[in-house]
Amino acid sequence: MELLDKLNWRYATKAMNDQKIPQEKIDNIIEAISLAPTSSGLQPFEVYVVTNQEVKDKIKPIAWNQSVVSDCSHLLVFAAWDTYTEDRINKMFDLVNEVRGFKNEGWENYRQMLLKGYPPRDPEINFNHAAKQAYIAFSQAIAAAAFEEVDATPMEGFDANALDEILSLREKGLRSCVLLPLGYRDTENDWLVNLKKVRKSREDLITEVE
Amino acid sequence: MELLDKLNWRYATKAMNDQKIPQEKIDNIIEAISLAPTSSGLQPFEVYVVTNQEVKDKIKPIAWNQSVVSDCSHLLVFAAWDTYTEDRINKMFDLVNEVRGFKNEGWENYRQMLLKGYPPRDPEINFNHAAKQAYIAFSQAIAAAAFEEVDATPMEGFDANALDEILSLREKGLRSCVLLPLGYRDTENDWLVNLKKVRKSREDLITEVE
Repeated sequence: MELLDKLNWRYATKAMNDQKIPQEKIDNIIEAISLAPTSSGLQPFEVYVVTNQEVKDKIKPIAWNQSVVSDCSHLLVFAAWDTYTEDRINKMFDLVNEVRGFKNEGWENYRQMLLKGYPPRDPEINFNHAAKQAYIAFSQAIAAAAFEEVDATPMEGFDANALDEILSLREKGLRSCVLLPLGYRDTENDWLVNLKKVRKSREDLITEVE
Repeated sequence: MELLDKLNWRYATKAMNDQKIPQEKIDNIIEAISLAPTSSGLQPFEVYVVTNQEVKDKIKPIAWNQSVVSDCSHLLVFAAWDTYTEDRINKMFDLVNEVRGFKNEGWENYRQMLLKGYPPRDPEINFNHAAKQAYIAFSQAIAAAAFEEVDATPMEGFDANALDEILSLREKGLRSCVLLPLGYRDTENDWLVNLKKVRKSREDLITEVE
């Protein structure tokens, strides 16, 4: 299967050269992010696409000084909603009604259930839930990048509060949760590029209940 | 791009017929799960592949009685580590050394950092972190299923404690976090199959920092 070839090709790139990614490939990666399924279809996150060199250079020291943060062509920052609000939930449900052209009782009851259940919860629980949805999209971005033969570095190692400050995320009700530098591998300077991919055995991963 | 075609083809299937998925396709989906990148390569989750009809029937009532849980061909249960332990961390680092055939000082220092940092943390924080890694794999399973023209229903709506009990997950240090029924759409009985996919606008999703 072609997807498996691409997933075998990709690796967490540790050094990138200065080649820029064509806009069309970036658009396709963004489209994959947009198409990712999310809980109740809420898409409770936004993605910042950072190409500004000064901003990338500012982020690098708060991301363990990893060179890919500043050397990448595009730095994707996945930022999840800091909580679920009535406005945010209503906006997505209204959009669904608008696009599909009708109102449905079951769907409206479901909206009411979320409106009653989500906003009063501890914001930390809501953020964690939203972040998981962002991870679904993040994963599809990784697969899409591999399809475009664009290298990527999935990264959790950064100071989220400092990044929220740099990108003014908190004012927009967002919190950064994961990074994806995109670019092209610098084969000569990447210690990981020639090392074997390691995965646990199928027996350690899978249990069949037959 | 072919991936985008597949992601547009898929939808959260609400009714499945009784057709069984060929083993080869299941193996490819499992391979995509295995290849998913995870934080520090720890793969802190396991996947239960449930085909036993009695077990599926037992899970259905604790999953909002959704018909796909019992009607699906294979029910995937993603179960994350309940916490990070020294044993679990060491096992993965040892495996990396074994497969790559050498020990590396940087890598060993990194191991020590995780051994010092992860196990003493609140297990709830560790479980949440592990669950996010499971979501990355879950997302790749969804994409892989679409590639195999296998339908899937991403599902968070279930009683995790009850499911942990049914599959005896807690004894193994696991906690269920998300479900993926796999099978084939029952076009005549699925209310969602002909409705438009709705996604927020690019402006609401993406911010460019140029």
